[in-house]
Amino acid sequence: MIVAFAGGVGGAKLAFGLYQEVPLGELAVIVNTGDDLEMYGLHISPDLDTVMYSLAGIANHITGWGIEGDTFYALKALARYGEESWFGLGDQDLATHILRTKMLGEGQSLTAVTRSLAARLGVKASLLPMCDQRVATVVETPGGPLPFQDYFVRRGASDRVLGLRFEGVERAKPTPEVERALSTAELIVFAPSNPFLSIQPILAVPGLRGLLSKCPAPKVAVSPVIGGRAVRGPADRLLRDLGHEVSTFGVAKIYAGLVNSFVIDEVDRQEAPRIEALGLRVLVTKTLMNSAEDKKELARRTIRFALGKE
Amino acid sequence: MIVAFAGGVGGAKLAFGLYQEVPLGELAVIVNTGDDLEMYGLHISPDLDTVMYSLAGIANHITGWGIEGDTFYALKALARYGEESWFGLGDQDLATHILRTKMLGEGQSLTAVTRSLAARLGVKASLLPMCDQRVATVVETPGGPLPFQDYFVRRGASDRVLGLRFEGVERAKPTPEVERALSTAELIVFAPSNPFLSIQPILAVPGLRGLLSKCPAPKVAVSPVIGGRAVRGPADRLLRDLGHEVSTFGVAKIYAGLVNSFVIDEVDRQEAPRIEALGLRVLVTKTLMNSAEDKKELARRTIRFALGKE
Repeated sequence: MIVAFAGGVGGAKLAFGLYQEVPLGELAVIVNTGDDLEMYGLHISPDLDTVMYSLAGIANHITGWGIEGDTFYALKALARYGEESWFGLGDQDLATHILRTKMLGEGQSLTAVTRSLAARLGVKASLLPMCDQRVATVVETPGGPLPFQDYFVRRGASDRVLGLRFEGVERAKPTPEVERALSTAELIVFAPSNPFLSIQPILAVPGLRGLLSKCPAPKVAVSPVIGGRAVRGPADRLLRDLGHEVSTFGVAKIYAGLVNSFVIDEVDRQEAPRIEALGLRVLVTKTLMNSAEDKKELARRTIRFALGKE
Repeated sequence: MIVAFAGGVGGAKLAFGLYQEVPLGELAVIVNTGDDLEMYGLHISPDLDTVMYSLAGIANHITGWGIEGDTFYALKALARYGEESWFGLGDQDLATHILRTKMLGEGQSLTAVTRSLAARLGVKASLLPMCDQRVATVVETPGGPLPFQDYFVRRGASDRVLGLRFEGVERAKPTPEVERALSTAELIVFAPSNPFLSIQPILAVPGLRGLLSKCPAPKVAVSPVIGGRAVRGPADRLLRDLGHEVSTFGVAKIYAGLVNSFVIDEVDRQEAPRIEALGLRVLVTKTLMNSAEDKKELARRTIRFALGKE
C-alpha cells in the first residue's frame, strides 16, 4: 500500500501518476478537507473533488480543478437570484456537491460518502478525507481572519498571510480508514501540494503525527517549489510571509524530521547539498507535471527512489 | 385583487395573461403543490416553478415547463453517478431547487421561500403555495399506487387512473396569505389546469372550500378541454377513467356549484346550452393559448365576462 498526502491541483497530478503506477487497489490518498465550504446549502470539498476527478479521468487539465468541458449555467442562474457567484461551480460539478450533501444529510460520514462517489466514478484507489469532522482553515491577514476560500478564490490569495488556524481541528481525529492506511503503508508520499494550506491541516489532526511517526515505511516529499517559485498557487508567498526561505530548501526544512527523502527539480540541483545536510536523501529530476506521461514518470521515479531502488 | 387557482403549464399560461392585464400587485396565484417531490435531496415544486418562470418571462415556451434555453449537464453528471435521471432538471432550474432547499432547511415556510425567489426574479404577483405542509398526490392505478411524478413524468401518464389520494392533506391548512387573498378577492379564476391533478389537491386542503364559499366574488373557470381533448396532459383520460363525460361539459359539471361562469372554446359552442343548464353563464371564445397575445386576450375576456362587463 502506498499512501499519499495531498491537497488540490498539485496533489491531484501526482496522485494521478501514482494511480497509474501502483497496482490497482494499493493506493490510498489522504486529502485535505480544511478547504471545504458550504455554499447555497451544498457541502463542497474542493480538494477531494480535484483528486477524485483526476483519478476518474474527467478532470479539467487546463484549470487543474473542476471537470473537463464543464459549463456554468446553474451558477449564472444563482447569480440571477442575487447570490454570490465567485466560486466556480460547474454544472457537472454540482452533481457531486448535491449528492454529497444528500448523503451527509442522511448521516453518512464524509469518508463513506467519498468512497461511494469515487466508486461510482470507477476510481479504484482509496480517497480518504483527513477526518470526518468539520475543520475550517482560517487565514489570518492584516485585514482580519478570512475563511479559506474567501482568501484563496474570492480575493485571489492576494493578502499577506500572518498565520493559519484550523478551526475545529481540536475535535477532529484520524478515521479508522486513515489509521489502517498508515498502519499498512509501505511508502508515504507527500505530494507537491502547498505545505501550509494543504498538508499542514492534515498533520494538524490530533493523533495523525503520532501515526506517521509509528509508521516504519520510508517517507518522501516532492517539492511544490521550483526555482524559487510555486508551480501554482501561493506557496512561495506563504513561505515568505511566514518567515521561511523562499526556495525548495525552505520547503525541505519544513519536511525535515517528517521524511527521509526529498524530490527536487533539476533547476534546483544546486540546492541538493544543503538539503542533504538536513539529513535527507535527495532525488533531482523533472518535477513539472504537464502531461499524463510527466505525472507517471515523476510518480515512478519518486517511488523507486524512496524505496531505495535508484 | 384577482385570485387565480393554477397547476402547471395551462395554469401558467393564463396566469401570464392575467399578470399582463391586472394592475401590478393585484394578482395572487394559488398554486398546487401536490406535485412536489424530493430528488437528490432537493425540494422541487414543479407547478410553482412553472408559474414563476412564466411570470418572470424566462419560461421555456416550447416545453411549457423549465427555463428557456436551459441545459442538462448536471442531470447527465447525476446519471454518470448512477442516479435516476428521468425528471428533467435543467442546470438553470437547479439553482431554484438548490436555493429553495437551503431556505426550507433554514426553517422558512414554502410560502416565504416562494415569495423570496419570485421577488428576486422580479415577479410582482403573489405566488402562493396551496399550503405550507407537505401534501403528496398519489395516483391509484391497476398496478398499485404511484407517486405523482412517477405516474406523470416517468411513466408518461400512461396508466389507467382508478383514483387519487392527497397524502398528508389532513394535516394541511390554508396559509394566512391564502386566507387573505381569498378574503380580498374581487374575482376568482380557475385556470385551465387539470381539474383532478392540479385543482383538486388545492381544494382538498381542509378549510379551503369554506373560504371559497364565504368569498362573495364572482368565480369563473376556463375549460382545459377543447373539442373533447385536453390541450395538454391527461385531463381527458382522467375524465374517462374517473367516469366523467370526456368533454368541456364534463369539466363544467365538476365546477358547477363552485363557479358562476365558465369559459369554453369556440369549437365547443354547441356545449353552451347544456352548460348553461347547470346554472353557469358561458363565455365562448378562443381558449387555445399559443402566443403571449393569446394569453392576454383570454385573460382580458375572462375577467370582463366574469365581472359582468361583456
